[in-house]
Amino acid sequence: MTFQQARRAARMNPSIIREILKVTERPGVISLAGGLPSPDTFPVDAMREAAERVLRDSPREALQYAASEGHGPLREWVAQRLGAQGLAVEASQVLITTGSQQGLDLVGKVLIDAGSRVAVESPTYLGALQAFTPYEPEFVAVDCDDDGPLPDALEAARGARFLYALPNFQNPSGRCMSEARRAAVVSRAMAIGLPIVEDNPYGDLWFETPPPAPLASRWSEGAIYLGSFSKVLAPGLRLGYVVAPKPLCPKLLQAKQAADLHTPSFNQRVVHEVIREGFLEQHVPTIRARYKAHRDAMRAAMERHMPAGCHWNVPVGGMFFWVELPEGVDAMALLPHAVERGMAFVPGAAFYAEHPKANTLRLSFVTVSPERIEQGVAILAQTLKEHRA
Amino acid sequence: MTFQQARRAARMNPSIIREILKVTERPGVISLAGGLPSPDTFPVDAMREAAERVLRDSPREALQYAASEGHGPLREWVAQRLGAQGLAVEASQVLITTGSQQGLDLVGKVLIDAGSRVAVESPTYLGALQAFTPYEPEFVAVDCDDDGPLPDALEAARGARFLYALPNFQNPSGRCMSEARRAAVVSRAMAIGLPIVEDNPYGDLWFETPPPAPLASRWSEGAIYLGSFSKVLAPGLRLGYVVAPKPLCPKLLQAKQAADLHTPSFNQRVVHEVIREGFLEQHVPTIRARYKAHRDAMRAAMERHMPAGCHWNVPVGGMFFWVELPEGVDAMALLPHAVERGMAFVPGAAFYAEHPKANTLRLSFVTVSPERIEQGVAILAQTLKEHRA
Repeated sequence: MTFQQARRAARMNPSIIREILKVTERPGVISLAGGLPSPDTFPVDAMREAAERVLRDSPREALQYAASEGHGPLREWVAQRLGAQGLAVEASQVLITTGSQQGLDLVGKVLIDAGSRVAVESPTYLGALQAFTPYEPEFVAVDCDDDGPLPDALEAARGARFLYALPNFQNPSGRCMSEARRAAVVSRAMAIGLPIVEDNPYGDLWFETPPPAPLASRWSEGAIYLGSFSKVLAPGLRLGYVVAPKPLCPKLLQAKQAADLHTPSFNQRVVHEVIREGFLEQHVPTIRARYKAHRDAMRAAMERHMPAGCHWNVPVGGMFFWVELPEGVDAMALLPHAVERGMAFVPGAAFYAEHPKANTLRLSFVTVSPERIEQGVAILAQTLKEHRA
Repeated sequence: MTFQQARRAARMNPSIIREILKVTERPGVISLAGGLPSPDTFPVDAMREAAERVLRDSPREALQYAASEGHGPLREWVAQRLGAQGLAVEASQVLITTGSQQGLDLVGKVLIDAGSRVAVESPTYLGALQAFTPYEPEFVAVDCDDDGPLPDALEAARGARFLYALPNFQNPSGRCMSEARRAAVVSRAMAIGLPIVEDNPYGDLWFETPPPAPLASRWSEGAIYLGSFSKVLAPGLRLGYVVAPKPLCPKLLQAKQAADLHTPSFNQRVVHEVIREGFLEQHVPTIRARYKAHRDAMRAAMERHMPAGCHWNVPVGGMFFWVELPEGVDAMALLPHAVERGMAFVPGAAFYAEHPKANTLRLSFVTVSPERIEQGVAILAQTLKEHRA
């Protein structure tokens, strides 16, 4: 090839999940593999009206270049909302990003040198591993239980640039960190000087009670917080935000400016127009109710069909069940058989930075109907029984 | 600070232009400093209708996660349009980006190692320097004349990862490379194995005749081509594209996926809806006519007012005049005096990777009216005369 690639390019890989989705997206296959929100929750009418208003009232501003920091009123809205959730920040600390995936890229760009250690949960969000990898870190997988990272396990991450954590209804494990675990993790992180990058795309999707306050609320100068509109409005707008301690804001802003100048002003204004007068207070409860019913359907189907020796959590929010199959069963090897029979899942190994557990898999319960969840889980259970026979 | 920053962060800087714009954007100041397209050219009605249609006909697709490569029909459209301009590519080589600024970031991410040499024109687009800088290259400024890079000067760039070139109505210089210069530059680049990254945001904005075929059309396996919808539709949608030789496409796609998953699907579908049936064939000529009239106004004002010893190009497309002041005049020192008197420009030094020429400045002729162009240039000339007195 005429072009010589950078060293980092050799470490970049296609998303295994996206590759799997290509194989599994056949007509007739019940896919519990995707990580997509249900399109039935997209507020299409509100979007249409907001787009109409923005293009009527401020077309020149909505279609012109804009500030890299983001649309002022939207930054104010984010700061106020986080304040109500226990995270006191100023609007000047809020940087609007092109989805929270971009927030991860900017964090990596500003904080990771080649060879830097970066601590992640085990398992963790695959997209974060992908965002950080081009900056050539060494990942340190922190041992976790059903409640999140084990405080004692943070010792192994001493000296890392940061701990990347997803405390609310984590993708892929579905787990939610308890109040006590949050306190213990932040306390230990402060003691060893390990900053935290907290990612919270799912926090609004709780089923019974809201999750405890963000980690960042306990250590304002040592934590970066990422949020998203993808799960409460729609992902196709690509709108997220990063909140950082003030000394870090200028560098994140410069990284943002270099990356895409600014997030589309049209999208920022449309979303602000939708949410400015309390729309989410009515809308998000409908998503919660819907996802909770789906969660219940999957729980019932799991209890009805899954063979002995399988374990799973029962998520109290978010979009995913995480399943541990009996020791020795390789979920990746199981997948083609499941697809053959008519259902798909994501093998869990892809979500580990180190020491992948081959006998794990992720199931999404939000995209297909309760009836098809029941059928999909039944097929999974049947495949598993035949595979082990 | 609790957070330790990456080494690259120390090299990142705020855009000098954006800092200057903050100072110069006072009420009453005639700004010829900005690089913004005229909002009078934004096709607001077409956008409103397209947004309405997209949210009526394909809301679930427009608001959902989508392929990292971009919206298929938009990629097809780009490939066909480039084909008509002499650049034969397949839709599979087109990657839709969040503005062409993101294309520059992805190119940097995939091609630049710390210490790599990267050749740029002198002067060059500041946003490209900003996009590449986080990847820690050593810039090599290639000597240029009014016709673009001097073929013999490419010798100094032997071994660089690529030459970054803006052949059409360059920002900031306004120059357009002739057919003969394009042939000579590509021929020399091929001879020394220097790949080319060709950036073309302004190519459609020609005033008398279209520019010659792209550099990339002469060396398909050795050139990356970047395009944008910002100057022919509206920049606030953040929509651009990268076209690369096939062997490079997978890595650029992986970099894109890590950076923001995908460019907003809503925006891609709205723009495709606007342009799919030939809208640009009617619309772009109106922008050309408008900008040409402004160019003529600035040329007349320059000839009427500017003192002896000043030189400028007369651009045959694009948005900018580039002015050389008499030797010894520092445009940065001149700026506060000009703003004091009521006009603003961008000092040229910021556009040089090496050996800045302090006696240069950039004037935009597209954002303000011909009457205010006349006034602004008169103030600039007066400031200059007083400054030298």
